[in-house]
Amino acid sequence: MANNRITDGSSEQQIKPYKKDADYSYTLGAFPTYELIKARPNQVRKVLVDTSFTDQEKLKKICDENNIPLEYNNKLIAKLSDKENCYVAGVFNKYNCELRSDKPHIVLVNPSNMGNLGTILRTAVGFGIYDIAIILPGADIYNPKTVRSSMGALFKLNFCQYQSFTEYQQQFSQHEIFTFMLNGENTLTLKDCPKVELFSLVFGNEATGLDNSFLKVGTSIFIPQSPDVDSLNLTIAVGIGAYVFTNQPK
Amino acid sequence: MANNRITDGSSEQQIKPYKKDADYSYTLGAFPTYELIKARPNQVRKVLVDTSFTDQEKLKKICDENNIPLEYNNKLIAKLSDKENCYVAGVFNKYNCELRSDKPHIVLVNPSNMGNLGTILRTAVGFGIYDIAIILPGADIYNPKTVRSSMGALFKLNFCQYQSFTEYQQQFSQHEIFTFMLNGENTLTLKDCPKVELFSLVFGNEATGLDNSFLKVGTSIFIPQSPDVDSLNLTIAVGIGAYVFTNQPK
Repeated sequence: MANNRITDGSSEQQIKPYKKDADYSYTLGAFPTYELIKARPNQVRKVLVDTSFTDQEKLKKICDENNIPLEYNNKLIAKLSDKENCYVAGVFNKYNCELRSDKPHIVLVNPSNMGNLGTILRTAVGFGIYDIAIILPGADIYNPKTVRSSMGALFKLNFCQYQSFTEYQQQFSQHEIFTFMLNGENTLTLKDCPKVELFSLVFGNEATGLDNSFLKVGTSIFIPQSPDVDSLNLTIAVGIGAYVFTNQPK
Repeated sequence: MANNRITDGSSEQQIKPYKKDADYSYTLGAFPTYELIKARPNQVRKVLVDTSFTDQEKLKKICDENNIPLEYNNKLIAKLSDKENCYVAGVFNKYNCELRSDKPHIVLVNPSNMGNLGTILRTAVGFGIYDIAIILPGADIYNPKTVRSSMGALFKLNFCQYQSFTEYQQQFSQHEIFTFMLNGENTLTLKDCPKVELFSLVFGNEATGLDNSFLKVGTSIFIPQSPDVDSLNLTIAVGIGAYVFTNQPK
């Protein structure tokens, strides 16, 4: 029980504002911190709490149960968070996952916006897709902005980064691939939705989408949309793709 | 042609950073400004351009064609925009619209986030729904943040604000109402999607959703989702509702 203590802020290792190359990141806010503790208790280094946080009993209890140190440190929370009204933060180790080869995937090719990435993680989990591939370069999945907009969904899923789509594809050759493209050859309708269990739904970058080489990779799909918009927002496209593929009529 | 001039920034009326009670707002960026000029040319007071903007010819041409004054004013653009890389801004009059009684609507009850509101407008137009009701209090539809995240879709649709849902409902009694709720009584499936042409899709606030009184207003609908998320993001829920209702199998 050496870890199960409440410290006064003079902890041995100094926590600094987020850096991409650090081996830890953090959750900002009580909700994602609870989600972190519930889903990945062994990865939590400590929980920071502001002395004015109102529900300290509950937080103490769940930290005690998981042998997670709780540290009162108003200054550090203020420093880590650029928003007001942040009273709790969880410091966690960056960890590695592997995607499961017998479950459907969402594949994001070069996603650039951390808020979008987090929303997509939340949406994927919402529709029961728990395995997410990111083709690099892409937004930092560990950045606290991604974590925050995922509402903690990050901790409930498996994710893995790949240097190229080919690398991903070689590893998961059993998956049927569907690429979402403005010039996709098949229109996504409710009636003719593909009936397939082991699928990869592939989406491109917010600004550029998937390039034409993806027309030849699996089945290309167009979500019908009005010419009055340039395109749908990426998160909306992922939401619709995930909804339709996880609700296929039997 | 008195209006069709290029000024040097010493214009008679001073444009200030956005205020909710002003009678004008602005687009930030070239893309939404072009959308503004194309869709609502008569509402444009003037277009501001930074001297380093690269495609001045095209901008001049479209302003000329619509008798819109073009003003070189780097300082003012920098002042209006809090982001870098903004080289064009359009100043437009706030205007009123009416919803059409023979077209489907999206009804947003107390939307609180301007980015979400803009994304929803873009999504609605993407699925061919051009009439949007907002039940107050709600995010400011004219705020440049909303305009920007709508990618100019704001200018292509009709919107109207109401003091209460009852006020909206009394005006559009022919519409069949569908309320999207976590405790909705009907699950939105691809097979059993309601077949109806004149519909109102009603969505609640980001944090609180629709209260239980909406269970008795029309047909309540639940988008199936995993217990591993608190809820879907509001914009995702609107996207799925709009997609399904505008793609009903015939």
